[in-house]
Amino acid sequence: MRTVDLIHRKRNGGELTTDEINWLIAGYVQGSIPDYQVSAWAMTVYYQGMSARETADLTLAMAASGDQVDLSGIPGIKVDKHSTGGVGDTTTLVVAPLVAAAGVPVAKMSGRGLGHTGGTVDKLEAIPGFQVERSKEQFLQQVRDIGIAVVGQSGNLTPADKKLYGLRDVTATVDSIPLIASSIMSKKIASGADRIVLDVKTGKGAFMKTLDDAVALARAMVEIGTEVGRETVAVITNMDEPLGPSIGNALEVIEAIDTLRGQGPAELTELCLELAAHMVYLGGKAAAYEEALQQVTELLRNGAALDKLKQFIEAQEGNGAIVNAPDLLPQADFRLEVPAPQDGYVSEIDAESLGVTAMMLGAGRATKEDRIDLAVGLKLNKRVGDPVKAGEALAELYMNRHEAEETSSILRRTIAAFSFADEPVERPKLMYAVVTKDGVRYM
Amino acid sequence: MRTVDLIHRKRNGGELTTDEINWLIAGYVQGSIPDYQVSAWAMTVYYQGMSARETADLTLAMAASGDQVDLSGIPGIKVDKHSTGGVGDTTTLVVAPLVAAAGVPVAKMSGRGLGHTGGTVDKLEAIPGFQVERSKEQFLQQVRDIGIAVVGQSGNLTPADKKLYGLRDVTATVDSIPLIASSIMSKKIASGADRIVLDVKTGKGAFMKTLDDAVALARAMVEIGTEVGRETVAVITNMDEPLGPSIGNALEVIEAIDTLRGQGPAELTELCLELAAHMVYLGGKAAAYEEALQQVTELLRNGAALDKLKQFIEAQEGNGAIVNAPDLLPQADFRLEVPAPQDGYVSEIDAESLGVTAMMLGAGRATKEDRIDLAVGLKLNKRVGDPVKAGEALAELYMNRHEAEETSSILRRTIAAFSFADEPVERPKLMYAVVTKDGVRYM
Repeated sequence: MRTVDLIHRKRNGGELTTDEINWLIAGYVQGSIPDYQVSAWAMTVYYQGMSARETADLTLAMAASGDQVDLSGIPGIKVDKHSTGGVGDTTTLVVAPLVAAAGVPVAKMSGRGLGHTGGTVDKLEAIPGFQVERSKEQFLQQVRDIGIAVVGQSGNLTPADKKLYGLRDVTATVDSIPLIASSIMSKKIASGADRIVLDVKTGKGAFMKTLDDAVALARAMVEIGTEVGRETVAVITNMDEPLGPSIGNALEVIEAIDTLRGQGPAELTELCLELAAHMVYLGGKAAAYEEALQQVTELLRNGAALDKLKQFIEAQEGNGAIVNAPDLLPQADFRLEVPAPQDGYVSEIDAESLGVTAMMLGAGRATKEDRIDLAVGLKLNKRVGDPVKAGEALAELYMNRHEAEETSSILRRTIAAFSFADEPVERPKLMYAVVTKDGVRYM
Repeated sequence: MRTVDLIHRKRNGGELTTDEINWLIAGYVQGSIPDYQVSAWAMTVYYQGMSARETADLTLAMAASGDQVDLSGIPGIKVDKHSTGGVGDTTTLVVAPLVAAAGVPVAKMSGRGLGHTGGTVDKLEAIPGFQVERSKEQFLQQVRDIGIAVVGQSGNLTPADKKLYGLRDVTATVDSIPLIASSIMSKKIASGADRIVLDVKTGKGAFMKTLDDAVALARAMVEIGTEVGRETVAVITNMDEPLGPSIGNALEVIEAIDTLRGQGPAELTELCLELAAHMVYLGGKAAAYEEALQQVTELLRNGAALDKLKQFIEAQEGNGAIVNAPDLLPQADFRLEVPAPQDGYVSEIDAESLGVTAMMLGAGRATKEDRIDLAVGLKLNKRVGDPVKAGEALAELYMNRHEAEETSSILRRTIAAFSFADEPVERPKLMYAVVTKDGVRYM
């Protein structure tokens, strides 16, 4: 087999066989196939796409390139959830205890990640005492005991994906649907998921800027899931404005607690129930999606989900009292209100820009070495469609640094993320579509 | 400037500026831009093409990447000729003395090259005593004195092209018209040519298998010439069968001498006159192409071109007597006739396969280190369209090795290169089109 012949065939619109894809990925990880051939191949994939079978093969080859988590010691169907990333997205902290309360085992390894705010693991570390490092045995035992454990990613998961992603990043081959889809799915499969629920974001604050692109990515991932026998459902959701009002690590923990108490923001609550219902249904704990939705709604109402969160926090040595006393979480030194510059209606909120603001405040990491400030962030008082008066607070900044110059720059930046209209503006849709193996259902 | 941004823009159908292309090529040669980005860029060029301006910029950037030959010390317009490569192509040995006899200075640096037979420099070395190594001063002085010098390539011409070609070869990005065109033209420009005449081969024995592809390549090269102020004319010629009957180094020298004496094969003679006429016209030695054609035809008829060959050989210490006594050239140990396997008409001759046969006989190099046997090769007695009787000689093999097994394998191979028909077959066309800055003229 010669790599150049595989590139040539793909370049001309042909397909690679399963063996050829396995050979390519194994050779790339081992270093016998050089970067310059893999980047040329990735560019042919950008232009020619990949068949469903090729995409599934690539996914499995990448999943098999490193450690693979074995969850077979946990009884029941393990359902994992993944979000393609957005701003103010606290769903995992709500959904994980919710589905665990419904009896679906949650055995989640989560990354720290780079970006506007920390990853789930960083947010959990805002809880005093919480331990994200666990031995494999502790991890599995905890799930068997209380139905839920969330730990930091350890070991060498999908090194092929890491290496390929690094190469794609510098060769303009990131935005290829089959390459994005296989990258995401390879990690979920290597993490041991039997079924997968995806939250695919679309809009200004998301990687997929258009609904069509988001649907295409969702379809590609659902197809992979079907091909490799891991049933997958994707919900396409709006990221034109931040999902929840809170952006920041401790702030999002508080928001998750509020939501589990049934007092959370409407949109976040609705999406968490939707995702949790899909997970409960896929996990075999309900006969139909509607039944699952009723079930998780009831678990939120009757406090069982919040109890599960407390139990989970305590199992990982965190202070469970925070569920009733959020002021035990890290507190920022001071708050600053962001005044509306005019009367009118909020017509747009630039989620991505607010994410960058949160990072400037210290809530996220630009490089792996950066330390996160868990207390800082921002909280929106106004959403798209809300009427405002000039001078009214659009948002509150939670800050620990207060150099005058930086503060006024962050303030200006936050104001600039809001657009206004004179006439009333309709609330944007939260969910656009659900993609299952049976097709796309627009909402 | 970031390479990934340039790849991204090109990938999406945009153009790179002159500065960006210069930066890319300079960075690639210096090693600051890695192979994996350049291969991704080359793949975008494969799919998106390049504008005429981009292609010209790439050509100039590659020409400027190493040494550039300065021919300004030679009076007159320097016209170079290049053939895209074929089998049995002896044109340079005929055309160079012919145009020199017409007063167009020939200052040619020629490579040894790999392939079926040697390059022009190897063929010249078949002449006893001939020296292909000359100092720069000797080279220029000889052209000033007698109007012609042909020497081996020295120095570091177009290192960017060498590096890029090596990368394209292993990343399935060879067959891109703008990349091929800029590769060829960069070498001609770095060699100091003011005007360029190209012989673009098409057909089974050529790299461009179809006429359309050959015309596209020719147009791209003529466009580059126009963009960079080096007027270029391309003749598209047939390489379905070998151009001349002789394939082999000394054999082709003999064929060139025959042609300069007016006793050469019809096709080779016709093409040499055509190419020489374009060169004489571009070199400003005739007011019109037709006048140039008359001029070179007369120089062939009256022996002036043959005299110029003799003068040229002697100026480079070769034995000029060979023009009258070809048996002074290296002789093969024995000849073997290749019998026709049936009655009929020759319908096809596989030029590429015969080229490989010549290489098996020892006439060419597979690797740079191989030694060429200057005496061996083959000579076709039959051309496409010729009637044959079973047992009649299709060709003669000139051999120095005669292991029985190898000989019979070469014999079978030669026979297999001929196809036969029962009905008369039309002679194929020699020339298909001429491409100038004014457009394509089909013949």
